[in-house]
Amino acid sequence: MSQVLQKLRLPLPRTISEATRTTGAGHALSLHGWIRSVRHQKKLSFVHLTDGQADIQVTLSPELARGLSTGTSVRVDGSLAHHPRTQTIEVRGTHTHIYGTAPGDTYPMQKKEHGSEHLRDNAHLRTRTSQIGHVVKLRHHLTRCLLEWFHDNSFTLVQPPVITSSDCEGAGEAFQVVAGAGRGNEAKEQQQPDYHHHQQPPFFSHPAFLTVSTQLHLEAVAGAFARVFSLSPTFRAEPSQTSRHLAEFWMLEAEISFVESVDSLTSVVEHSIKSAVGGLDPSLVKSDSLYLEKEWGQITYTEAVQLLRERHSVSPFHHPPTWGASLQSEHERYLAEEVCESPVFITHYPASIKPFYMRANDDGLTVACFDLLVPGIGELAGGSLREERLDVLERNIDHAGLDRGTYNWYLDLRRYGSVPHGGFGVGFERLLSVISGVSNLRDVVLFPRWAGRCNF
Amino acid sequence: MSQVLQKLRLPLPRTISEATRTTGAGHALSLHGWIRSVRHQKKLSFVHLTDGQADIQVTLSPELARGLSTGTSVRVDGSLAHHPRTQTIEVRGTHTHIYGTAPGDTYPMQKKEHGSEHLRDNAHLRTRTSQIGHVVKLRHHLTRCLLEWFHDNSFTLVQPPVITSSDCEGAGEAFQVVAGAGRGNEAKEQQQPDYHHHQQPPFFSHPAFLTVSTQLHLEAVAGAFARVFSLSPTFRAEPSQTSRHLAEFWMLEAEISFVESVDSLTSVVEHSIKSAVGGLDPSLVKSDSLYLEKEWGQITYTEAVQLLRERHSVSPFHHPPTWGASLQSEHERYLAEEVCESPVFITHYPASIKPFYMRANDDGLTVACFDLLVPGIGELAGGSLREERLDVLERNIDHAGLDRGTYNWYLDLRRYGSVPHGGFGVGFERLLSVISGVSNLRDVVLFPRWAGRCNF
Repeated sequence: MSQVLQKLRLPLPRTISEATRTTGAGHALSLHGWIRSVRHQKKLSFVHLTDGQADIQVTLSPELARGLSTGTSVRVDGSLAHHPRTQTIEVRGTHTHIYGTAPGDTYPMQKKEHGSEHLRDNAHLRTRTSQIGHVVKLRHHLTRCLLEWFHDNSFTLVQPPVITSSDCEGAGEAFQVVAGAGRGNEAKEQQQPDYHHHQQPPFFSHPAFLTVSTQLHLEAVAGAFARVFSLSPTFRAEPSQTSRHLAEFWMLEAEISFVESVDSLTSVVEHSIKSAVGGLDPSLVKSDSLYLEKEWGQITYTEAVQLLRERHSVSPFHHPPTWGASLQSEHERYLAEEVCESPVFITHYPASIKPFYMRANDDGLTVACFDLLVPGIGELAGGSLREERLDVLERNIDHAGLDRGTYNWYLDLRRYGSVPHGGFGVGFERLLSVISGVSNLRDVVLFPRWAGRCNF
Repeated sequence: MSQVLQKLRLPLPRTISEATRTTGAGHALSLHGWIRSVRHQKKLSFVHLTDGQADIQVTLSPELARGLSTGTSVRVDGSLAHHPRTQTIEVRGTHTHIYGTAPGDTYPMQKKEHGSEHLRDNAHLRTRTSQIGHVVKLRHHLTRCLLEWFHDNSFTLVQPPVITSSDCEGAGEAFQVVAGAGRGNEAKEQQQPDYHHHQQPPFFSHPAFLTVSTQLHLEAVAGAFARVFSLSPTFRAEPSQTSRHLAEFWMLEAEISFVESVDSLTSVVEHSIKSAVGGLDPSLVKSDSLYLEKEWGQITYTEAVQLLRERHSVSPFHHPPTWGASLQSEHERYLAEEVCESPVFITHYPASIKPFYMRANDDGLTVACFDLLVPGIGELAGGSLREERLDVLERNIDHAGLDRGTYNWYLDLRRYGSVPHGGFGVGFERLLSVISGVSNLRDVVLFPRWAGRCNF
């Protein structure tokens, strides 16, 4: 095959990186890209050229630089040179070809810094800015690093369904999926989806939703492949307007069979994130809220509540900490930022505030689970051992007021070849936010969706 | 950081592959997995053990093998041995621990071969069979090989939105996404989504759909990053019941800036697929319908119609081939299977049967596009140069009876820094089908969705 592939050298113009890597100083090359900025001096113009992946400085005579402005797409012919002072490379342009202009009076992405809201309103153009371009690169490289870590550690990548008839109970409200209202059918667009009235049958035979977590489906595959993971879009129809919630977001989720302790799960979380982030080019890592060099903290929920109550008696929280109640944002921040000064795993929460599938501890009160709290961002990940005992799981379903029939297939996983197992989910945008230092999740996805907003 | 990571050796039981790779012959090891089959002989029982990723034969005394059957989950302690005849490795078990049984009278995944429909009805268990397990492995490895090829060739991975207010016009009917009917809210579940009547506001400010193609959003990013790609779920609300269509499927899509010919695009398609498939372990490749060793064919639509008409005059097709009409399945099969005996790119279709965004050729009749037809499967990929000229694109939108306002952001990409560019989409399940030889697409996704069917 190599012979055939040899012939198939890609007939694409070389990227800036490819061209500069393979061209010697003084030799000719052509570059294609967009102009990020132009600075005119008397005898020379300095053009900052980018093709997204790489940037380079191009020097041009004032004549050649005429008509070039931020956003213009060009081909530059010239020769590669080493910049005498900085020893970086640059290109001395001898010819330019303009593909498309970007008139300065209307182009929404000028050189000046833009407000976040302006950038979000122009999400179709904002990847051209260095700040959002940085996020694009980070998503690419972090995805690769994570996939490689999981592959190297014997995990199999699974692509679970987005449309589901199950939901991961307790994870929040789900979007519903209906047919018959597509743009492709103008007549139907005026009809409302109305399968409840049975005037037209649903597209699927019963209500279908967008997945809120791939966990249940991953567990099914973990009954055949001992280590599985997914990096997939998930959805919550929550009306939240905070900077920490999106209606569509990505989750890294993993399920591991033959695991019998929460410590094993937290180790996988800590190891995978540290390794993946450690594998990134340092220029992509803007903050070390992850404290890569430090061992992360781990305390039980009961210990956490004790610590919070001690602090509360000295300097009261807004919400008094109480065993049996969820930890509030102010509590989580105190534990991560002041007690541990690092990410911290809080383990063994009360069963009463956690979903039915988490494995009961012998104390009869708590479940074998964890949340990972990170300074500055709060909850980054969560996971648990999953209840693998059929009778206990059935009791949990009844106790939660759920229908056993709905979960019959999930119960089958315990009826046949059940194994002790557990898993976790990491909020991918939150991880990107921690690494990039971009605090608003609406700016670490390219086209953010939240309540009231689904542009483009 | 390496010191911290050193301490963090994963506290997981070793997989079969990890354990056998690091254990010398005659040395002790423990394996965890599921029993695929048991064969009892007088003095020894032969157990086929798997953890999904790897398989191994375990020999046990009849006493130790008691109670083991297909589907049972076990830990086996024993020692590694080289099988005297075959020189393969096996394990001589000295102790077994059963985690979960799989009673032979009810377990739906017995050793015998199951019909496809039975397996689909038990999609939560079918990854335990060797045939579907094979598909799981193939998806994992093919995904990795494709990501690596695109990364190595300077493409940036983009994760475009699943929920969209745009649609890739002409690609088919879209599912609509509505809120307020999630399981999490029983009261609301009885309400029908009815934003058309404005009794309750839509979750987003206007109708939202599941994406039918990531192309338009990828094009936006390709205006900043010259080479981008995605491997993402896409959706069609089509009532098709054929083995070649799914309501939810994955697409590999790419957009490339500064490209000016269809040949460049077809080269990228041919090179990426051949390289990725060539990088797979040969045990994963069941068919060579892709003719990896052979250069793929390429003819124009006009030439194709000429060839079809010649054949039609001798041995008539059911649908007479006509210039200006879409190629029928029987035409496509003839071209790929009989004329070319290899995958073949058909280029430059009539503008009248293609979407508005494809770039017009100078002949005024055809557009710069291609379909890739593959023996046995039909259309595997399609792509085109995208119309980068603002005035031509506006005319196309008008001509197609579409609303310029809807596509205003897409037109912006031509208003500011427009470049010649093109892209393509490959049906990921169709590619998996060609490689695996599994002809029904419902069996190359783990939880298939089609009209009338969304189980699990």
